[in-house]
Amino acid sequence: MNAEIIAVGSELLLGQIVNTNARFLSEQLAELGINVYYHTVVGDNANRLSQAIQLAESRADLIVFTGGLGPTKDDLTKETIATSLQKSLVMDTEALDSITAYFHKVGRQMTPNNEKQALILEGSTSLKNEFGMAPGMFLTQDSHHYMLLPGPPFEMEPMFKKYGRESLLRVLAKNEIICSRVLRFFGIGEAQLETEIMDILDRQTNPTIAPLASDGEVTLRITAKHESRVRAISMIDELEKEILDIAGDYFYGYDDTSLIREAITLMTKHSLTLSCAESLTGGLFQSEIASVPGASNVLSGGVVCYSNEVKETVLSVPKEILDSFGAVSEQCARQLAENVRKLCNSQIGISFTGVAGPSEQEDKPVGTVWIGLSIEGHSTQAFPLKLAGGRNGNRVRSVKYGAFYLLKALKELSFN
Amino acid sequence: MNAEIIAVGSELLLGQIVNTNARFLSEQLAELGINVYYHTVVGDNANRLSQAIQLAESRADLIVFTGGLGPTKDDLTKETIATSLQKSLVMDTEALDSITAYFHKVGRQMTPNNEKQALILEGSTSLKNEFGMAPGMFLTQDSHHYMLLPGPPFEMEPMFKKYGRESLLRVLAKNEIICSRVLRFFGIGEAQLETEIMDILDRQTNPTIAPLASDGEVTLRITAKHESRVRAISMIDELEKEILDIAGDYFYGYDDTSLIREAITLMTKHSLTLSCAESLTGGLFQSEIASVPGASNVLSGGVVCYSNEVKETVLSVPKEILDSFGAVSEQCARQLAENVRKLCNSQIGISFTGVAGPSEQEDKPVGTVWIGLSIEGHSTQAFPLKLAGGRNGNRVRSVKYGAFYLLKALKELSFN
Repeated sequence: MNAEIIAVGSELLLGQIVNTNARFLSEQLAELGINVYYHTVVGDNANRLSQAIQLAESRADLIVFTGGLGPTKDDLTKETIATSLQKSLVMDTEALDSITAYFHKVGRQMTPNNEKQALILEGSTSLKNEFGMAPGMFLTQDSHHYMLLPGPPFEMEPMFKKYGRESLLRVLAKNEIICSRVLRFFGIGEAQLETEIMDILDRQTNPTIAPLASDGEVTLRITAKHESRVRAISMIDELEKEILDIAGDYFYGYDDTSLIREAITLMTKHSLTLSCAESLTGGLFQSEIASVPGASNVLSGGVVCYSNEVKETVLSVPKEILDSFGAVSEQCARQLAENVRKLCNSQIGISFTGVAGPSEQEDKPVGTVWIGLSIEGHSTQAFPLKLAGGRNGNRVRSVKYGAFYLLKALKELSFN
Repeated sequence: MNAEIIAVGSELLLGQIVNTNARFLSEQLAELGINVYYHTVVGDNANRLSQAIQLAESRADLIVFTGGLGPTKDDLTKETIATSLQKSLVMDTEALDSITAYFHKVGRQMTPNNEKQALILEGSTSLKNEFGMAPGMFLTQDSHHYMLLPGPPFEMEPMFKKYGRESLLRVLAKNEIICSRVLRFFGIGEAQLETEIMDILDRQTNPTIAPLASDGEVTLRITAKHESRVRAISMIDELEKEILDIAGDYFYGYDDTSLIREAITLMTKHSLTLSCAESLTGGLFQSEIASVPGASNVLSGGVVCYSNEVKETVLSVPKEILDSFGAVSEQCARQLAENVRKLCNSQIGISFTGVAGPSEQEDKPVGTVWIGLSIEGHSTQAFPLKLAGGRNGNRVRSVKYGAFYLLKALKELSFN
């Protein structure tokens, strides 16, 4: 099966937003073994959209649309497809109830154009929108499959994963099973990892290995095809073992996990609580922890000690340390980690202090970072980083390194 | 003039990277008054690329290509265009010299396939690549314009800005100026805003108004075309005034600003410092503030009071308040805002407490949020929210509302 992804929205053609939906869907379709041959972006214009639909029908079996399902006059994806396929639009009462309930809940008035969002293509399967109002749709007609998804990624991605993917699997219903697993690495570059496992990479056809680098992490996606799911999984197991024999030191987890999630899992398992003192990162580390459901089991809280005054008064860093070594120093990082742990009465304290940029500070260059780590009953550690990104790149990278050092320390603890 | 942007690269169709080049070029072309009607992404396949070229020639005056100019066998953009336009490829000696010099400089051996990068389409203008090896090209033939740009954004963007744009300006050489301005709104839905300004929307042709909603904000992009820049700007001014007469209460700023940036600007102007107590948002608000350069002028810091213990011990919320009203309450939000302000010795304190989800808490439903705001010398305020997003959607939305209420309070202060 081959597919075309059509994103509808003038905001894309004006360059106001980037088409991340096409990337997400391409990756998802590739995993299902569906070849994507074209992405198309077209504006909120019925005539041009209808030409794009005809063209896609001439070159693809599956057409996935994103965007244009909203309440305004600009939103015309389903209307145009309806005309093109000679289908009418019918009310999805379940979606309408959920839209009405939403307005009731937030206490805002529901304008009539919002009802339009609950209309779906006659004969289509409605795909539930758990994070927004407009439902998606899946329809098969004349040997073509049409999937309509909303434009906002936080609505579209969960809808595809939970409902859209299922519809496609039912259509595919083929004998060959495709299994894939992502191995995640931190602390090693993509080129270096590729060099270390070159021998394995060179001889792979099934399973295949696809390396990808982003945000300081490298992932390897292993994909196996076989008639038997059990055999496909054991093919992946065997290859994973070979890879980890070589590069296991940098490996930290599977699939959609993250350094933060792995650390939370271990802390939860060992009933440990965490506090954070954040200067450089300004709350980003704690915010990342808090973004994971269940974070309240481990995160006591902490202090964003952006100014030196807060470091001194709230976190009791001695003035002499700030005067002699500066706020961006090993000594300060240690004090912050220890003191925040005690202040918040938790077992682990972690701290971040550094020069985010754009200008240097205390005669230390942009990218100088110290991470402190204090664990009850153990001596406090401090880790230096030298980062080369921009202001926010350096903050994000520091948070990743913090999670990496925390995870490493937790793994060592677990052996005791 | 209308344009189509064709990105060439199988890595895009596999979802390994996102097509940020299309966004960049769309924005640049819009500024030049060139209408972009389509984006197309096609893989490294000569047959499909050549079909995409024919199609684009049938519907666009200008075709901008990105990617496929490199040294490997996969890179076939210029070869395919050469075949399609019946042009030969000729050596650009200046580009060849620069490639040779590069290999000399880094001390690596130049393999023969690197020479291929210096070949350009016969009759085209070479566009210098100051951050990589492959030059770009601009060619006009049979009333069509073709621009070929490299794929990596750090090569493509400066090449377009410095050389590509010039080539287009020479071709355009026209009198009409295009000006645009974005008005940003918060606290009003897209459908509601559209309903309120329906009369204005319905009669607009020049300037045009394009609404866009994202992350709880709504923007209106006003675009005017006129021979005189002064007149185009005054056309925008007039329309803006009409819109703000109706919906001014929800308007907060122009173009690329954000609620957080506007609040920082006002606090900086009035030499006010800010502290934050974050339960629900877990540090996200402070992290957003810290992401803006110059944040250290206003952000003292604050406390992430995720556990009730931290609320009590670090932020001195009386146990009776937590017991009688709960942590998610108006009373607690007020205490947190006042106490964090005093603890960190700043003029403004803001607090966030709420039920992020996935489960309810203290018998309060997911999405219940209280924001506290304490300004030195003024009585403390508290604002309730009822949010309907997922866990992280609710946290992000709360941060935006916090910035909105802060900004509103700062604007009222400024009048005193």
